[in-house]
Amino acid sequence: MPILILGAAGMLGRKLTAAIMGGALPFSRLTLADVVAPPPVDGAVTLALNLADPGAAAILVKDRPGLIFHLAAVVSGEAEADLARGYAVNLDASRALFDAIAAIPDYCPRVVFASSLAVFGAPFPKVIPDDFHLTPRTSHGTQKAMTALLLSDCSRRGLNGVALRLPTICIRPGAPNRAASGFYSSILREPLSGLPATLPVRDSLRHWFASPRAATGFLLRSDAGNRPAWPQPRAVDARLVGPQRRDDQDAAARGRASGDGPDPPPARPGVVTSWAQACGAKTARSLGFIAESGCDEIIRISVHDENPCHRTA
Amino acid sequence: MPILILGAAGMLGRKLTAAIMGGALPFSRLTLADVVAPPPVDGAVTLALNLADPGAAAILVKDRPGLIFHLAAVVSGEAEADLARGYAVNLDASRALFDAIAAIPDYCPRVVFASSLAVFGAPFPKVIPDDFHLTPRTSHGTQKAMTALLLSDCSRRGLNGVALRLPTICIRPGAPNRAASGFYSSILREPLSGLPATLPVRDSLRHWFASPRAATGFLLRSDAGNRPAWPQPRAVDARLVGPQRRDDQDAAARGRASGDGPDPPPARPGVVTSWAQACGAKTARSLGFIAESGCDEIIRISVHDENPCHRTA
Repeated sequence: MPILILGAAGMLGRKLTAAIMGGALPFSRLTLADVVAPPPVDGAVTLALNLADPGAAAILVKDRPGLIFHLAAVVSGEAEADLARGYAVNLDASRALFDAIAAIPDYCPRVVFASSLAVFGAPFPKVIPDDFHLTPRTSHGTQKAMTALLLSDCSRRGLNGVALRLPTICIRPGAPNRAASGFYSSILREPLSGLPATLPVRDSLRHWFASPRAATGFLLRSDAGNRPAWPQPRAVDARLVGPQRRDDQDAAARGRASGDGPDPPPARPGVVTSWAQACGAKTARSLGFIAESGCDEIIRISVHDENPCHRTA
Repeated sequence: MPILILGAAGMLGRKLTAAIMGGALPFSRLTLADVVAPPPVDGAVTLALNLADPGAAAILVKDRPGLIFHLAAVVSGEAEADLARGYAVNLDASRALFDAIAAIPDYCPRVVFASSLAVFGAPFPKVIPDDFHLTPRTSHGTQKAMTALLLSDCSRRGLNGVALRLPTICIRPGAPNRAASGFYSSILREPLSGLPATLPVRDSLRHWFASPRAATGFLLRSDAGNRPAWPQPRAVDARLVGPQRRDDQDAAARGRASGDGPDPPPARPGVVTSWAQACGAKTARSLGFIAESGCDEIIRISVHDENPCHRTA
C-alpha cells in the first residue's frame, strides 16, 4: 500500500519514517512531504510542498495513498503568537487535504491525524475521561479540536479518519521548538549534556507525556483501516483515542538544573497550566497504545534512541 | 448602542427584529442584513449582503455595532445535502465576521451566535448535561460546533462571544424549510389549517423544542456584554449555554394528522434520531432562559403569535 507522511521533516515524522523503513509497516511506495524537504531516505520519495498552498493537497493525494499520516502542524507557542498562520496551517491545510481526498472518486484512505491533548481545557476532573468535553484554552487546541470534528464529518463521506490526541512528546531531541511545552524536554535533555535549564512553572504542576518512541508506536498502531477494536461508529473514532501516560513530576523535577543558566525560554505558563494533567485514556489502552511508566524510562529511552550509534532518525 | 442582526430575513431574525422594534432592547441604530433583503422596517437599515462574500463582513461591522446577533446559517437538511455550501455559510462566513471584528482596533462587540443542539450526537445519557462532549453526527452540527469553538478562541482576543445551542424551533410559521426537523412544525401547523401532515419518524422518538417566541427571548437575554451570571472565564460562555426545554412527545403525537396526504417531506430520519432528546440546560435555566412547559403551550403560542391580528413579524 502507498503511504504518505505529511509533516515528514518534523521530529515525529522522521521517527515514523525510520520505523516504517525498518519494517514496521509494509508499503509499496513511501512519500515524505513537508514545507521543507525532508531528509533524503533511500527507497522513499521526498517532496517540499506546503499543504496550505492552492493545489498542493491534490498533488499529494493524486496517486491515491492508502494510508496518510497527517502530522503537519504549527506548534502551540507559534499558533498562539500568530493567529492567522495557526489557522491556515492547522485548520485550512487539513481541510484542503480532506477536500482533495473527497474529490477523487472511489477513494477512501485511512487518515491518521495528530491531534493534541490541548483540545481539553481546565477546569478538569481528577482524571480526564475519553468523553470529556472539548474546552480548548489555546488557539492550537482550538484548531486541533476543529480539525478533528471536520475529520469526523468527512469520515461519514469518503475517508477513514482517526484523530490521536497526543500528549506532550518528551524528550524531544535537538534544539527547543516553539511548542509551549518545550521546556519539559529541556529540563530533562539539557542536564544530560551538562547544560543548565529552567523549569518555568511551579514544580507541583503535573503533566502528561509520551516519548517520541511511544508516540511513533501510537501512529503505527493506528494504521489498520477497519481495526475492529476502534469504537463504532467510525465518526467517533476520530475523537475517542487519546494515547497518554501520566508522568511522575518528581522525576521531572529531579532532572531540573539550577544555577546561572540563561533566562527561561519563552514558554507560556498560562498555556501549559491550562492543559490536562491526568487522563484515563481508556480507549487508547484498550487499543494497545503503550507509553512509558514514568520519567526515568523516558530518560533511558532518550539516552538510547538519541545515541548516534543507535539513532534511526 | 448600534445593533446588527445577521440572518435578519429568516424567521427568527424577523421575530427578533420585531421584539427589538417593540422596545425589548434599546438601540441607537438597527441594521438588518441577510443574503436577501429583509422586509423593510421603519427606523431600521436593511442590507442585502452575503456574509460569505469577500469584504462583506468588513462592510457589516465598519460602523462598530456593539451587539451582533449572528443567525445567518444554512439549515441541517441543506448542509447535509450540499457539503460545500454548508461549510461556506456556517463556518467560513462566521470566521469572516470574527476576522473583520478583529481587524478593527479597540472594538469588542457582544456576538450572540445561534448554535444548535445538533452539536451533540448519540449515544446520549438520559439527560444531556451542559458539559456533554461534542459528538455531532451531521455536517450542520459539525459546522456549528466548529464555529462555537472558533468563537470561544476569538473571545480571548477581542470579541465577547456567546453561542446559544438552540433546540428545534417549533412551530415555525409558513412553508416548510429545509431543516431536517421541519416536520415537527408541520405535524402541528398543518392540522391547525385542516391540512394533512405525516410524522416520518417513530412516534416514540422524543425531541427538544422551543417556540419562536421563546427562542427570541433567549437571544434577547444574551445581550448583556458582561452579565455576571455568565460562566467564567469568558471563553467558556460560548459553550455552556443551551436554552432547551424537553417537550411532551405525546402532545406532538396528538397533533399528527393521518389520511391521504402527500408523501412525507424529505426529512432525514437518520439525522433527526441522532439528535439529543432531553437536556439538563442547567446554565440556561440559571440565566433565566424560559421556554414552554409542553407542546400544548407551544401550539397556543403559535395560534396567538401567527394570528394576523397579533402578528408582529
